[in-house]
Amino acid sequence: MRMVDIIAKKRDNEPLTKEEIEFFVEGYTNDEIPDYQVSSIMMAIFFNDMNDEERADLTMAMVASGDQIDLSEIDGVKVDKHSTGGVGDTTTLVLAPLVAALDVPVAKMSGRGLGHTGGTIDKLETVKGFHVEITEQDFIDIVNRDKVAVIGQSGNLTPADKKLYALRDVTATVNSIPLIASSIMSKKIAAGADAIVLDVKVGDGAFMKTTEDATELATAMVSIGNNVGRNTMAIISSMEEPLGRAIGNALEVKEAIETLKGEGPEDLTELSLELGSQMVVLGGKAETLEEARTKLRGVIDDGSALEKFKVFLKNQGGDVSMVDDLDKLPQAKYTFEVEAEKSGFVERIGSEAMGVASSMLGAGRQTKEDVIDLAVGLMLNKKVGDRVEAGESLVTIYSNSEDVEAVKQKILENYKIGDNETNIELIRKVITE
Amino acid sequence: MRMVDIIAKKRDNEPLTKEEIEFFVEGYTNDEIPDYQVSSIMMAIFFNDMNDEERADLTMAMVASGDQIDLSEIDGVKVDKHSTGGVGDTTTLVLAPLVAALDVPVAKMSGRGLGHTGGTIDKLETVKGFHVEITEQDFIDIVNRDKVAVIGQSGNLTPADKKLYALRDVTATVNSIPLIASSIMSKKIAAGADAIVLDVKVGDGAFMKTTEDATELATAMVSIGNNVGRNTMAIISSMEEPLGRAIGNALEVKEAIETLKGEGPEDLTELSLELGSQMVVLGGKAETLEEARTKLRGVIDDGSALEKFKVFLKNQGGDVSMVDDLDKLPQAKYTFEVEAEKSGFVERIGSEAMGVASSMLGAGRQTKEDVIDLAVGLMLNKKVGDRVEAGESLVTIYSNSEDVEAVKQKILENYKIGDNETNIELIRKVITE
Repeated sequence: MRMVDIIAKKRDNEPLTKEEIEFFVEGYTNDEIPDYQVSSIMMAIFFNDMNDEERADLTMAMVASGDQIDLSEIDGVKVDKHSTGGVGDTTTLVLAPLVAALDVPVAKMSGRGLGHTGGTIDKLETVKGFHVEITEQDFIDIVNRDKVAVIGQSGNLTPADKKLYALRDVTATVNSIPLIASSIMSKKIAAGADAIVLDVKVGDGAFMKTTEDATELATAMVSIGNNVGRNTMAIISSMEEPLGRAIGNALEVKEAIETLKGEGPEDLTELSLELGSQMVVLGGKAETLEEARTKLRGVIDDGSALEKFKVFLKNQGGDVSMVDDLDKLPQAKYTFEVEAEKSGFVERIGSEAMGVASSMLGAGRQTKEDVIDLAVGLMLNKKVGDRVEAGESLVTIYSNSEDVEAVKQKILENYKIGDNETNIELIRKVITE
Repeated sequence: MRMVDIIAKKRDNEPLTKEEIEFFVEGYTNDEIPDYQVSSIMMAIFFNDMNDEERADLTMAMVASGDQIDLSEIDGVKVDKHSTGGVGDTTTLVLAPLVAALDVPVAKMSGRGLGHTGGTIDKLETVKGFHVEITEQDFIDIVNRDKVAVIGQSGNLTPADKKLYALRDVTATVNSIPLIASSIMSKKIAAGADAIVLDVKVGDGAFMKTTEDATELATAMVSIGNNVGRNTMAIISSMEEPLGRAIGNALEVKEAIETLKGEGPEDLTELSLELGSQMVVLGGKAETLEEARTKLRGVIDDGSALEKFKVFLKNQGGDVSMVDDLDKLPQAKYTFEVEAEKSGFVERIGSEAMGVASSMLGAGRQTKEDVIDLAVGLMLNKKVGDRVEAGESLVTIYSNSEDVEAVKQKILENYKIGDNETNIELIRKVITE
């Protein structure tokens, strides 16, 4: 088999065989096939796409390129959730205890990651004592007993994907549906997921700008998952304003707790119920999405979801008293109100810009070495569609610095107030096959 | 300027600017831009093509990447001819003295090259004493005085093209009209041509398989030439059987001499007149192709074309007596006849296969180190459309080895004899703008 012939085949729009895909993914991982041949086939794939079979083969070839987490000792269907990125997305913190309360096992491997706020682990570490340095056996035992645990990322997962992504980034082939879909799915599968729920964000603050594009990506991932024996569902949700009201690590933990109590923001609650329903169905704990939603409402209302969150924190060393006394979370030294300059309706909030504003306060990480300030962030007092009077607070800034002029400016520039009472449709689509 | 943005632009089908094309050609030549980014943009060009302006800019960027031959001291319009490759193509040997006899300066830089037979220099070296090791000043002086000379290739011409070609070869991007056209044109322009005549071969034995594809390539090259101030014309000619009857170095020299005497094969004579007419018009020695053709017929008929060939050989040390005594050319030890196995009409002769057969005898070079046997080769006694009786000779093999069974077999397998009196249309198209 020669790589140049495989490139020519894809260039001429002929589907590649499983063997051909494995040949180049394996060869590239082992440095046997040079970058210049792989960038060439990536561009050919950009133009000629891949069919369902090729996409599944590419995904599994990337899974096979490195370590694979074995979660078989955990009883039940391990359902993982993946979001394509957003601002102020607190759903993971809500969903983990929420579905675990219905006995769907949540065995989450998580990283710290870069972004406007920290990763799931950073957020959980705002709870005093909480840590993810547990052994793999403890991890498995906890999930079997209490249905939920988080462990830090370890092992060499999908090295082919890492290498391919780095190459695509410098050769203008990032934006390709089969390549994005196989990249995401390979990571979830290598991490041991039996079933996968996807939250594909759409809009201004998201990678996918239109519902059409987001649907194409979601459908591609659902199709890959189902073709490789991992039941997969997806939701297309709006990123036209930040989700919930909190952006910042401790602030999001507080918001998650409120949501588990049934007192969270409407959009975060709704998206958590929607994604949670899919997880519960895929986890085999309900027949239909409606049944699952009713059960999820039940564990919020009877307090067992919040109770599960406490057990989860306690199992990994966390100070559970914090849940009932939110003042124990890291507190910022200062708060500032960003006041509306005129009256009207909030027509638009720049999601990306709010993330950047939060980053400016120190809530996020630009490089792996950056230290996150867990206490700082933003609380959005007004969301799209809300009536606001001049002088009313749009946003509360939580800061450890007194100088927040630039942050205020950034926020004001990205809050559009006008005469139209806009309504954002949060859930755009539900894709179950 | 970032290479990744230039790739993305071409990927999105936006035309590149002159500056962007120069940036990547220069950067690649200087090893500042890596192979993997260039292979990616080559594939994007394969899919999205280049417009006329981009093609001209790419050509001139490649010309600028290395040395450029300065022929300005030579009077008149220096017209160069390029053929896209074929089997038994003796036109260069005929054309050089033919158009020089009409005072069109032929200042040819030539290489040895790889292929079924040697390059122009190899062929000329079958004439005892002939050599191309002359100084640049001698070269210029000879052309100014006698209008024709050949010098060996020197200098570092179009290194960008060499590097790009090697990369395209292993990344399945050879077959792209803008890339082929700019590659050929850049070499001719760097070699100092004021005007260019192109012979684009089409058919079984050629790179371009259909007249449509060949026309696209020819039109692309003519357009580049005219856009960068080099008057350019082209002919699409058939490579469905070898041109002329001779395949092999000394055999082709002999055939060229016969053609200059007006006694050559019909197809070789016709193509030489057609290409020669274009050269004469571009060289400013005739107003129309018809006038040029009449003048060319004239210098064949009055013997001045043959006389010019003698002067050419003599100027570079060649033994001119050979022209009147062709037995002085290198002679093979043996000749063998390949006899027809049945009667009928020759319907097809595999051009490529005849080239390979000649190569098997030692007439060509596979690697630069190979030594060519100048005496060996094939004479086609029957061409497509000829009537042949069983037992009649199809081909005479000139060999220095007694074992020619495999060569005979190759020839017989590729001579199709049947009931149809086929006629090959030699000149498919004449493209003058």
